Amino acid sequence: MEYLDFFFRPKSIAVVGASRQPRKIGHVIFRNLIDLGFPGKVYPVNPNATTILGRRSFGSVTEIDDEVELAVIATPSAIVPSSVEDCAKSKVKAGIIISGGFKETGEDGRKLEEESLDIARRAGMRLIGPNCMGIYDTYNYIDTLFLPRYRLKRPPRGDIAFISQSGAFGAAVLDWAAELGIGISKFVSLGNKADIDEVEILKYLEDDPTAKCIAVYIEGTNRGRELSETLKEVTARKPVIVLKGGMTPEGQSAALSHTGILAGTPQIYEAMIKQTGAIRAETAEELLDFSVALSHQPLPQGNRVMILTNAGGFGVLTADSVSKLGLKLAKLNDETIRQIKGKMPSTVIVKNPLDLVGDADPERYEIALESLTRDPNIDSMIIIILVQTPEIDPEIVDVLTNVTSFYKKPMLVTTVGGELTQMLTKMFSESGISTYPTPERTVKAIKALTTCAQNRMRTESGM
Amino acid sequence: MEYLDFFFRPKSIAVVGASRQPRKIGHVIFRNLIDLGFPGKVYPVNPNATTILGRRSFGSVTEIDDEVELAVIATPSAIVPSSVEDCAKSKVKAGIIISGGFKETGEDGRKLEEESLDIARRAGMRLIGPNCMGIYDTYNYIDTLFLPRYRLKRPPRGDIAFISQSGAFGAAVLDWAAELGIGISKFVSLGNKADIDEVEILKYLEDDPTAKCIAVYIEGTNRGRELSETLKEVTARKPVIVLKGGMTPEGQSAALSHTGILAGTPQIYEAMIKQTGAIRAETAEELLDFSVALSHQPLPQGNRVMILTNAGGFGVLTADSVSKLGLKLAKLNDETIRQIKGKMPSTVIVKNPLDLVGDADPERYEIALESLTRDPNIDSMIIIILVQTPEIDPEIVDVLTNVTSFYKKPMLVTTVGGELTQMLTKMFSESGISTYPTPERTVKAIKALTTCAQNRMRTESGM
Repeated sequence: MEYLDFFFRPKSIAVVGASRQPRKIGHVIFRNLIDLGFPGKVYPVNPNATTILGRRSFGSVTEIDDEVELAVIATPSAIVPSSVEDCAKSKVKAGIIISGGFKETGEDGRKLEEESLDIARRAGMRLIGPNCMGIYDTYNYIDTLFLPRYRLKRPPRGDIAFISQSGAFGAAVLDWAAELGIGISKFVSLGNKADIDEVEILKYLEDDPTAKCIAVYIEGTNRGRELSETLKEVTARKPVIVLKGGMTPEGQSAALSHTGILAGTPQIYEAMIKQTGAIRAETAEELLDFSVALSHQPLPQGNRVMILTNAGGFGVLTADSVSKLGLKLAKLNDETIRQIKGKMPSTVIVKNPLDLVGDADPERYEIALESLTRDPNIDSMIIIILVQTPEIDPEIVDVLTNVTSFYKKPMLVTTVGGELTQMLTKMFSESGISTYPTPERTVKAIKALTTCAQNRMRTESGM
Repeated sequence: MEYLDFFFRPKSIAVVGASRQPRKIGHVIFRNLIDLGFPGKVYPVNPNATTILGRRSFGSVTEIDDEVELAVIATPSAIVPSSVEDCAKSKVKAGIIISGGFKETGEDGRKLEEESLDIARRAGMRLIGPNCMGIYDTYNYIDTLFLPRYRLKRPPRGDIAFISQSGAFGAAVLDWAAELGIGISKFVSLGNKADIDEVEILKYLEDDPTAKCIAVYIEGTNRGRELSETLKEVTARKPVIVLKGGMTPEGQSAALSHTGILAGTPQIYEAMIKQTGAIRAETAEELLDFSVALSHQPLPQGNRVMILTNAGGFGVLTADSVSKLGLKLAKLNDETIRQIKGKMPSTVIVKNPLDLVGDADPERYEIALESLTRDPNIDSMIIIILVQTPEIDPEIVDVLTNVTSFYKKPMLVTTVGGELTQMLTKMFSESGISTYPTPERTVKAIKALTTCAQNRMRTESGM
């Protein structure tokens, strides 16, 4: 799949439509590539400037006396065809057309889009976009997101690849992920998909070792069959989580005017996601939550969940959620019960949920976990930790980090609250412990892991 | 309901078990009452200290040479009966027993609880607890939450009254509310409910003008019929949102060992909530989200929702959510369409969702809202604002605040993202604009408003 390497690992980049004015998107893109430390050459192209950010500006891509592999095009839509033409002349391999004003705006725009695509096709140049945010790649230092970092925080390097048809959707989710410290490997915004679509990107990500799982936001496709086949292939190798916008008649109609692509009936997508072994997210929140779990947690061998808590009420709500989602509460081994009982104060009743009660300290969690992690009747574990209680201190992070170093089953954390809770969440996240702010979100993530494991077994058994 | 005034508006408080040691709960409670500025007298009671925080300490409540109206009791469970006995002797009107170690721990504890209750009953003294967090009242400066403020942030004064059976649940939700800037009028943690239960508190809150709505977390009750009748009565006056823990067999069993109160079948509670006109929350998140909307928004006249956005993808997902929850997309008046069309760039297609597209500035929102707020076909409005887009600035807060000053229908905001998004959320919240971080949570809040309106109409028509 060498041709997509020109997008993600180009030796050199031209920013066509780079500007001297800080608010212009051509300026932001050029600056971001430099700030992020892209290791290859970056050339600004702007006929009306001599230098931009201290670098010599070129009147056209054709004037650059070097091989340009990737062009990021941010010129007004009316002159995009001639920008692409210049790239074609210079044998540029890959183009990202950031600019809007194409198919999404009506007939005139559609013509401009087709014209640009024709020029690129004849020259063997591949295109992402138009009307997109392009690429953010934390491994290869590419950042074509045209929003300044104070508006759109960039997530750190991580294990989740993220494909979004909608640029604004992608931007908001990236910003959200950054706030939560959730790491991204590659982000690709596809926009109008004049040329490259999710099918090609999915195939590329299948072999990308930096992508432990793939999150996809899609509103519609023109290649249902290929998408279906590709999903089947990729999900056999790594988890793919799909959020489909337009799953109701109302949403479908909105999607049509948003992207100009017929969304297909909800039933078709629902069946496709199920049959291909992908995991369906119904909200942006689920897309992120499931990605965090699927990129970090081992898959469970079954659906028996253990709940450990220092707050009875949240134990109750978690048990409710386990039951509602068709999972089971693990029935503790007699030996486990005996062991834990001997080491707990009399106020702790050893069952599932196991309520360590309000005065539990990290040591009490450690003692309980020592036995629970050996119990064969448990397939996955939810640890609820309320930091509002008096005895919880940062040592709890060490206790859980230690467990993850040997425990081969999913262990997820729920912690509910404000500032101190968010601090704890960040500490856990940095230790690779998937942490959620409500019982229901934690249980849904366990459910996603379980579904993924079931799909995997089905595939491997050839069913 | 004068007797409950002794809990919420006492002239004087004794903290029985006040301690000189900063980590002891008796110390934290005493300090919090002073720090919060409780306007009446606060007396520390501790036979082993002469002064606490510079105030004279008393060996027993009986030694206090003043009328004590409320006693907050934080002594070890074994001596709670004698603490209550002293209060009884001194004609204390109301007692909050914070201490645990009663019914929830087994037979010995149950006896201590019954003994304490007997003593109180004979003296005409009413009790909240034991095994509870007590009261946090932002209007009357009462704070018996025994957790220091760095662990458990206190929410600001506001319009939501909150009753929680579980103390830890209440604490976590208060802390979360504080982080989001959500205001609380009164919080009451009921614990074992030896004497006072949710029925009495609900009746009291019915006449409390500071409570615009009431949020309830309950795991079980011994007075199903009275609770049902009270809910019916109160919901006719103000919205009540109920989260019931133990709505599945698994959760029910967990609740039994948590509180020792039989939770009742889920079906009974489900029917009760529906028949009484209360709003059911299924998660802690919904409990807070619905409370925010129901305490601040007018009730809608129907279920036709208008979506205004600067991000197509989130418009699609919101439309999906509207459809899934059985609400309708408003069909715009011809006049509205004509007016808006004339004032928008050609890239904006005037329909519902109305996508103002990525370069929308606050003025474009203002222009659209000027017409939309006059459209009789709209019952409620969802405004999606992504601050990652380049043209959104803080003026958007003024634009929406201005609308709320005359618009008599619900208008809720969705904004998705990280740091800047959270800043905007706080600015909106301070202006009384209900703001949510995902499309689905916003739509669910609209649904709660709609359900409440329907219940109200049903009641008023006597159906």
